[in-house]
Amino acid sequence: MSEPTKNDLKEASERINPFVHRTSVLTCSTLNQMCEAELFFKCENFQRTGSFKIRGAANAVFSLSDEEAGRGVATHSSGNHGAALAFAAHLRRIKAYVVMPENAPEVKKDAVANYGAQIIFCKPTIEARKNSCTGVIKRTGATFISSHNDYHVIAGAGTAALELCEKVGDLDVVMAPVGGGGLISGTALAVSAISPKTDIIGVEPKKADFAFRSLKAGKIIPSDYPDTVADGLRMPLGSLTFPIIQRYVKEILTVSEGEIITAMRRTWERMKIIIEASSAVPLAALLAGCIALAGKRIGIIISGGNADLANLPW
Amino acid sequence: MSEPTKNDLKEASERINPFVHRTSVLTCSTLNQMCEAELFFKCENFQRTGSFKIRGAANAVFSLSDEEAGRGVATHSSGNHGAALAFAAHLRRIKAYVVMPENAPEVKKDAVANYGAQIIFCKPTIEARKNSCTGVIKRTGATFISSHNDYHVIAGAGTAALELCEKVGDLDVVMAPVGGGGLISGTALAVSAISPKTDIIGVEPKKADFAFRSLKAGKIIPSDYPDTVADGLRMPLGSLTFPIIQRYVKEILTVSEGEIITAMRRTWERMKIIIEASSAVPLAALLAGCIALAGKRIGIIISGGNADLANLPW
Repeated sequence: MSEPTKNDLKEASERINPFVHRTSVLTCSTLNQMCEAELFFKCENFQRTGSFKIRGAANAVFSLSDEEAGRGVATHSSGNHGAALAFAAHLRRIKAYVVMPENAPEVKKDAVANYGAQIIFCKPTIEARKNSCTGVIKRTGATFISSHNDYHVIAGAGTAALELCEKVGDLDVVMAPVGGGGLISGTALAVSAISPKTDIIGVEPKKADFAFRSLKAGKIIPSDYPDTVADGLRMPLGSLTFPIIQRYVKEILTVSEGEIITAMRRTWERMKIIIEASSAVPLAALLAGCIALAGKRIGIIISGGNADLANLPW
Repeated sequence: MSEPTKNDLKEASERINPFVHRTSVLTCSTLNQMCEAELFFKCENFQRTGSFKIRGAANAVFSLSDEEAGRGVATHSSGNHGAALAFAAHLRRIKAYVVMPENAPEVKKDAVANYGAQIIFCKPTIEARKNSCTGVIKRTGATFISSHNDYHVIAGAGTAALELCEKVGDLDVVMAPVGGGGLISGTALAVSAISPKTDIIGVEPKKADFAFRSLKAGKIIPSDYPDTVADGLRMPLGSLTFPIIQRYVKEILTVSEGEIITAMRRTWERMKIIIEASSAVPLAALLAGCIALAGKRIGIIISGGNADLANLPW
């Protein structure tokens, strides 16, 4: 597959529709007042497996040939992608192998295991994760499904923005958090295809500003997996996501840890919805006044809701 | 006003429509599986001021004559009704006097004050609350608006169930928590008026089972304001709500503190929405298997979402 076209996005949407929720778009007058703008939140925290990741995982899994599918799928992930791939594999009734660091939270291990995937534990380093995953693939013939650096995953991720733009017209801006770049690049492809006048803005933690620095440098800056509260955004950009971001994303904003936590808490308090820290990053930029968007109609992709309720950041 | 008729409920709905949200009805396949039933959650946690209370308060405030309104409204409340009445008064641009115990949480005081109401602090006893309120009314001529024992408040509360039944047909059961009885009696009037085959079931904490005992005794059992985690459900039934409950409510179930906390947490984890402990009480009865409702279509009124995020019960 090459870079997803408008048609690829529509096909992805049709392919995954039987398996994913068409999530709500919520608004909140108090947050509108605080930001002096009109905000539309696409609530992927309500999505199956608790995040948008099922969109990309399902699109990848259901794009495999029967022969490929028969050998299963594999990935390394300590977060939402692992659970999403496990669930997508369960839906197609094929095997999933998920490499996880041995110190991953119990709740994340349970989520992956509950969907019937086989977990392979490894040391908590990125090298160990990659090596374990390569070993599994050699042994089983499973297809590797990256959390973000895969065109099917990118197209699947873009279907959330597709639905947002279909539901809410005339958006001036669509914002999404940036980690490995799967969500923002899928969002960028979708929005530029069906609403070309809408600006696409990515936001990331200052502590993990790899997209900001990569765009400035004109090449991918590797991540040192910093300890940001937005634990879904520690990855570096991928070779497939970076060029899409270079082409379509107008700007990358960065926010502090405190700004992320405040935005997360405001969302819980005011919207009464549970979002994880990574999902609070775009609102954090608006609340902190990082950008002048007064009076604008702004779509925000809420990427997920898998917060650890026993360990809140405030 | 006498006991609200179907027509009174429709009028209440029209009266408050410009001021309240028509809240979402959400479903959750995991909770359906856990309860072996089909659940429809009417999300008044997304309502303005964070609870259904604005429906009753707005109906009461906008039913006043201009002359009455000119003297303002008064109530005593340490919870959602105080904030709702303050906001309703703000909407009509009239004065609100809210008597609160001096040890009320800061966040509750702030909510009432932010809507522009005048707060009158008193000792934290029910006697002191009532006396302070009587004093305010004597001094100002304000109209007392009870949190639950008022037909306009009851009719307003019933509009949530009206919307639920309009949106979701063929419900076998509608469930709501029971405190002073405003929500359950409004719900009962609405459901019996437009969906007479639907059973109405109330649920309350075992620690505050005043409705259960009152129904059994055939008279109102006074509350000793027990320290249940469901802090919205400590009140005794009112003289107006009790007869409605006697007539229309099929059954009152009771649940333990642990069952309430578990149901609250499951809702946060699985539905990714924030509900307060009082709102978790009906789901607690289903999860604990208090009643055999397998295969049924069950509507649940989620009464509010004003949980204290700095002080969770787990």
